[in-house]
Amino acid sequence: MFEFKLEATSGNARVGILKTPHGDIQTPIFMPVGTRATVKTMSPRDLLEVKAQIILGNTYHLYLRPGHELIKKAGGLHHFMGWDKPILTDSGGFQVMSLSGLRKITPEGVHFQSHIDGSYHMFTPEKVIEIQNALGSDIMMSFDECPPYPATKEYVADSLKTTLDWARRGKEAHKNTKKQALFGIVQGGIHEDLREESAKALMRMDFPGYSIGGLAVGENKPDMYRITNFLHDILPKDKPRYLMGVGTPGDILQNIENGVDMFDCVMPTRNARKGTVFTRHGKLIIKAARYKEDFSPIDADCQCYTCRNFNRAYIRHLFNVDEFLGMRLATIHSLHFYLELVTLARQAILEDRYNEFKNGFGAKLDTRIE
Amino acid sequence: MFEFKLEATSGNARVGILKTPHGDIQTPIFMPVGTRATVKTMSPRDLLEVKAQIILGNTYHLYLRPGHELIKKAGGLHHFMGWDKPILTDSGGFQVMSLSGLRKITPEGVHFQSHIDGSYHMFTPEKVIEIQNALGSDIMMSFDECPPYPATKEYVADSLKTTLDWARRGKEAHKNTKKQALFGIVQGGIHEDLREESAKALMRMDFPGYSIGGLAVGENKPDMYRITNFLHDILPKDKPRYLMGVGTPGDILQNIENGVDMFDCVMPTRNARKGTVFTRHGKLIIKAARYKEDFSPIDADCQCYTCRNFNRAYIRHLFNVDEFLGMRLATIHSLHFYLELVTLARQAILEDRYNEFKNGFGAKLDTRIE
Repeated sequence: MFEFKLEATSGNARVGILKTPHGDIQTPIFMPVGTRATVKTMSPRDLLEVKAQIILGNTYHLYLRPGHELIKKAGGLHHFMGWDKPILTDSGGFQVMSLSGLRKITPEGVHFQSHIDGSYHMFTPEKVIEIQNALGSDIMMSFDECPPYPATKEYVADSLKTTLDWARRGKEAHKNTKKQALFGIVQGGIHEDLREESAKALMRMDFPGYSIGGLAVGENKPDMYRITNFLHDILPKDKPRYLMGVGTPGDILQNIENGVDMFDCVMPTRNARKGTVFTRHGKLIIKAARYKEDFSPIDADCQCYTCRNFNRAYIRHLFNVDEFLGMRLATIHSLHFYLELVTLARQAILEDRYNEFKNGFGAKLDTRIE
Repeated sequence: MFEFKLEATSGNARVGILKTPHGDIQTPIFMPVGTRATVKTMSPRDLLEVKAQIILGNTYHLYLRPGHELIKKAGGLHHFMGWDKPILTDSGGFQVMSLSGLRKITPEGVHFQSHIDGSYHMFTPEKVIEIQNALGSDIMMSFDECPPYPATKEYVADSLKTTLDWARRGKEAHKNTKKQALFGIVQGGIHEDLREESAKALMRMDFPGYSIGGLAVGENKPDMYRITNFLHDILPKDKPRYLMGVGTPGDILQNIENGVDMFDCVMPTRNARKGTVFTRHGKLIIKAARYKEDFSPIDADCQCYTCRNFNRAYIRHLFNVDEFLGMRLATIHSLHFYLELVTLARQAILEDRYNEFKNGFGAKLDTRIE
């Protein structure tokens, strides 16, 4: 049921189609984050309208609440949340590693305490596969340790050995390979030799896709771009590459140029809920007082539901009086923009003018509109 | 542009059509409350989908934020919030009266302090007309004093004199009568003689519609029903009657039987946000643990977006983890139910079987599902 077909390139930028049991995904793609079985403020049809093709669910959060066994009883995560297109789940690794003070890493796995009630739990490579099998996501992640940044090279190298062993154990534990594709996660920090070691070891295990983890954790952007560019020549051309947790619109365009196919980030949704939206002209702080009497849409050229029907003054008012609809209208706009961004990138690659597109359309995306 | 056409009766229950500049309203009708230019959690198209025909806006809240002058600049409340069907605005009277300690009533009007920043303001009958003219609502309310409950009969009688004087002054101040209909508000507490005095004085002023205020403020339900039943014989048959702030599904059916045409209440929306929804089988506490593994919809017979696509376990999970979508799905269901309720009542009146409908369909509506 899984197949990745590379359709076109422009420089190192790639266009492909990833076939999954819940439908095809046109790459490059941005995946909205639905941590707790909902992309915050959005209904499934809101997601379809902004042209989401695949969303994320979070293994750690769903394991704690409502529990993966309950979701399995509901018929899986798709059925539980009313979303019948593809879903990718992370491994929970990033979340349990972030529970500093509440967790202990051993070769066997990670002991941790729930951030909700302090109860004790353990994630092993086998356990996170069991959880993701129960969730029934189309794309699963191997359990990995994501080292903090900064970390010594020795720490990163040691951690990498554990992560590779966990990848092997997870792959052995995963039986439902026809319906769920398990990706390996390349680690190695900002060190090219460690990244190469990680990628090649995973490639020997032959995963149907490769994630790039351990970036967007605090390193400088040139380091991030250097690593993705470096990995482009190493990772197999015929498998999808997913850069985890990235990023700004500019980051996405730069990493598409470096051969990445898939992205996820809470940035468009979280910023929207706090009153900042993304547009082709830069970031706009929609809750700012300067828009109090601005009766134009967020972006006059945007075709999203928000921009077709509501003006800045109204959305600013909703934020000012703490009305839910403000967060939702802002989220709709920003997700629509992120998904339009990757669609435009895709078109530019198909027409072999990606670099021109990135330098033109992409030039002002990460600036702030004053 | 205004016309009320009485189409059918069944006992005292009435079916009519109220023509407004923004479209016809089929009565009896329930009007969702959109206090601050949004029905909480709902977009305008969500409202259309649940078959809302008219919504409320709140003069006091909109005067304070974003301000009626700003809404006027935006082209009026319809344009500001993206809702092109009818809007009814209250007079702000109920809100400023509720600011106990922050307000002082004089024959001229009410001095009050903003609940937001403590700033000083004054509402007069003329001022609230000016505000509602700026908002551009289809149906406006006269400024009235809504006496607290309980109050002495002397207090209610004195207050009534002020309210009648304010109704006269407001009517004189209202010039935009072709586009905005100003209703008079019948007061008089639970005293039939005062209610009669109030209604007849207002009828001499000849308003295009009559509101029944000062009920659902703490009195016993039999008193509420007695007063609406009493007013049925007094109020003109050819004008719409609006019972303010009512109520439960059972209250609505009982008051339709007493000849009321229009209702508003925060109950379906507020309760939904707190995790309780209304169904034809009674109230259901959707956030309750007992629904943790209940994979059936809120109401299998309901055709709303929520019931067609989501199950109780999922909605309960959303409430359990404080996700916005839970409040929205519950709101969609309960508003759909309230609007289906008045549609079914309308059909029963047209078929002259209203009493049977009320005693059958209506029997369990105000109970709680255990």
